[in-house]
Amino acid sequence: MNEEKVCVVVGVGPGNGESFCRKFANEGYQVAALARTKEKLDELVGDIDGVTTYSQDATDRAEVFETYDRIRDELGSPDVVLYNAGSGAFGTFDEVEAEDLQESWEVNTKGLFLTAKAVLPEMRDRGSGVLGITGATASTRGVPFTTAFAQAKGAQHHLAESLAREFGPQGIHVFTFIVDGVIDLPRTREMMSDKDDDFFLDPDDIAHSVYEVAHQPKSAWTFKLDLRPYGEDW
Amino acid sequence: MNEEKVCVVVGVGPGNGESFCRKFANEGYQVAALARTKEKLDELVGDIDGVTTYSQDATDRAEVFETYDRIRDELGSPDVVLYNAGSGAFGTFDEVEAEDLQESWEVNTKGLFLTAKAVLPEMRDRGSGVLGITGATASTRGVPFTTAFAQAKGAQHHLAESLAREFGPQGIHVFTFIVDGVIDLPRTREMMSDKDDDFFLDPDDIAHSVYEVAHQPKSAWTFKLDLRPYGEDW
Amino acid sequence: MNEEKVCVVVGVGPGNGESFCRKFANEGYQVAALARTKEKLDELVGDIDGVTTYSQDATDRAEVFETYDRIRDELGSPDVVLYNAGSGAFGTFDEVEAEDLQESWEVNTKGLFLTAKAVLPEMRDRGSGVLGITGATASTRGVPFTTAFAQAKGAQHHLAESLAREFGPQGIHVFTFIVDGVIDLPRTREMMSDKDDDFFLDPDDIAHSVYEVAHQPKSAWTFKLDLRPYGEDW
Amino acid sequence: MNEEKVCVVVGVGPGNGESFCRKFANEGYQVAALARTKEKLDELVGDIDGVTTYSQDATDRAEVFETYDRIRDELGSPDVVLYNAGSGAFGTFDEVEAEDLQESWEVNTKGLFLTAKAVLPEMRDRGSGVLGITGATASTRGVPFTTAFAQAKGAQHHLAESLAREFGPQGIHVFTFIVDGVIDLPRTREMMSDKDDDFFLDPDDIAHSVYEVAHQPKSAWTFKLDLRPYGEDW
Repeated sequence: MNEEKVCVVVGVGPGNGESFCRKFANEGYQVAALARTKEKLDELVGDIDGVTTYSQDATDRAEVFETYDRIRDELGSPDVVLYNAGSGAFGTFDEVEAEDLQESWEVNTKGLFLTAKAVLPEMRDRGSGVLGITGATASTRGVPFTTAFAQAKGAQHHLAESLAREFGPQGIHVFTFIVDGVIDLPRTREMMSDKDDDFFLDPDDIAHSVYEVAHQPKSAWTFKLDLRPYGEDW
Repeated sequence: MNEEKVCVVVGVGPGNGESFCRKFANEGYQVAALARTKEKLDELVGDIDGVTTYSQDATDRAEVFETYDRIRDELGSPDVVLYNAGSGAFGTFDEVEAEDLQESWEVNTKGLFLTAKAVLPEMRDRGSGVLGITGATASTRGVPFTTAFAQAKGAQHHLAESLAREFGPQGIHVFTFIVDGVIDLPRTREMMSDKDDDFFLDPDDIAHSVYEVAHQPKSAWTFKLDLRPYGEDW
Repeated sequence: MNEEKVCVVVGVGPGNGESFCRKFANEGYQVAALARTKEKLDELVGDIDGVTTYSQDATDRAEVFETYDRIRDELGSPDVVLYNAGSGAFGTFDEVEAEDLQESWEVNTKGLFLTAKAVLPEMRDRGSGVLGITGATASTRGVPFTTAFAQAKGAQHHLAESLAREFGPQGIHVFTFIVDGVIDLPRTREMMSDKDDDFFLDPDDIAHSVYEVAHQPKSAWTFKLDLRPYGEDW
Repeated sequence: MNEEKVCVVVGVGPGNGESFCRKFANEGYQVAALARTKEKLDELVGDIDGVTTYSQDATDRAEVFETYDRIRDELGSPDVVLYNAGSGAFGTFDEVEAEDLQESWEVNTKGLFLTAKAVLPEMRDRGSGVLGITGATASTRGVPFTTAFAQAKGAQHHLAESLAREFGPQGIHVFTFIVDGVIDLPRTREMMSDKDDDFFLDPDDIAHSVYEVAHQPKSAWTFKLDLRPYGEDW
């Protein structure tokens, strides 16, 4: 039913990004999968029917605009953009430097802004579109371990709010989902080998809810969706 | 697919309650519709296939327990309970009295607690179940016009949070959806006749998202879902 | 300098209430100390210069109005009212009943509203006055252990917000201070005998900041003040 | 009584910065006033007894460290540091560019982090110290007009929270005050010439409360203080 529709997933790695690609492709979307390194990207999602891969540094304005030009040429205008780029240095005050804060800010916030600059004006002209943003517990508060990461997610969250409030009345649904827990990945399983299955968020389950919110009827839109495993102590 | 499942909607009037009944009945649930006055209730949802009506004062402990005994006998154990009872006196400080605050508290908070007492222990024994609660902007803050209402919704919201945190690890999904806007009803249309269609939340659209959250996979549950019309100034 | 000024402290027991009485009396206020049991009250603060004691059930409208009539006759019109009444049953879902929720709501919220009814109209006529409210961590969220208490503090917090927003422009400063930790009392020391001094809030230190906020210049008023021991893990 | 104490005010312009310098100098502190342009700074606060001026770009690591070395030599180790640097480009999505977001982030967040790197380790060794941060409404949410500014203040707020949580138990009081309104300045008076006196925050009144919080006894510290004019509609 979504045959002619285009979904862009920015920041595709194992976990959320991969699951978003699969889910939207399964639902009939033409999916553009974006990441820095094309090799890893192709390995990860290159074989999924309906997924096209693009390498892009989300913090470089020229690259961002070029990528969306190519997507428009090859797949069509994006209907849904999911901003999932967002690494971060973790550590307490002594363990991080200004460069860590800056890098984290660039990937999480500047990259989101450049992506918005590349896609929102067109969506506004059309009067429709969706921009979903991957948030984290750190989007809602800072703790010692997230000295570098939480400031970047705080910035990203406020930017998402500014965009949602400005573009909602234009028919564009900007929303964020707060992943409040640890995603189930080979890497996280290894780091937390004492935890059982219930401890982790399954990225396919995140993708399930993100897809639903991205398709909410416009008289009842969600801006902020928290997602956590049922056993989480919060 | 939900053939053997039972959904209870507490506080069925025109708007959310009615839409919840229709949506869950359409999806195959046996629906128990509860409200104070059986006549109005029967008129409203009595003809919907799969809906059974029960009169109940949600603030009366004995009545609440009796009602759930009857529901268990007649339909089966509730899988999903939606607590939608929640009127409130509106007005500034001079316009409300302690009785207004108490009444509002009883319907929104005491009623929710009694309902929880009637259904959560059984759900806990079974290790599954859903309790969804209708919130409002007043669940998140108090303003002059909501002197009586916001204190009740604040109480209800904290109760919902206590329940979600205690019963999540037991496999029971407690969540609340914050209706941040005006619901489309003959009554509200008349009161705000200068507003156009975009101003209102369609209760069917609320029901759509409530159904989705009530069926989220358990590795990624939402506690708090905000819902507002795309044109809302928030 | 506060010679002709009157401060009412509602809910005087060992801890905050006693410290508020001492602090405001020391600063020259005529202090009215209110609590249910006159004997305990007299023992606690009856000997402090400038403190007059009154017994009052804060949840009984008639008693509340009579008490303020007596205060006006004997001391003068209240300039500052500190609402410190606020007990609560603690316990998880199974350990509390609807009566516990109601009692907690009555002391924390209904009592505040009745007090507001007794003092705010006069303050409004005069164009000045202060109403300070003792909050707690439970004013900001509900957890399993605070199933009864957090709903009451949530209600109280929203009521405080409604009052602050309505009465601020009338020249009346309504504020709340969130006590985020355990107050240093013989009772709490005994219960938590493994904790060292740094763990506890000194009620005199709370009184210090409450006094300051109650005397803020009106171009820069605080509504919500969090207070926690420096060593608190929050 | 504060004779031997040193207070650093970062970002001294007309308004808050100037008022902080005056207030702390009046209370006996040796005050170091920092800003980019020494000429304007000398004009503004150069004549105040007890104030020494330093030019500094708060976003340049080397300059920041050099400045604090000089302050230590000339005045002594800082006891209180007030981070008041924080300009920002205002405007909706179309009116701002990535450079505006970056600049705003650098002044509000990177500058705070560099200042923290320059002063917190020494305070930690000593087991005492105060770091106060000027926040704004934009520290708590983003709206269209603050697309560039709110993301920076969101980042700053989370950084402040991370620092407060890490350094509180070390005896260092990190706090932020949210200025929720317009400060009374020749410039703002001109821009909003239709507003009367009650509309504006007097920076001396802000300084009054900041001084009080900076001197709270350590058993009852505030992290977040909101400040708004009594007539503000919030």
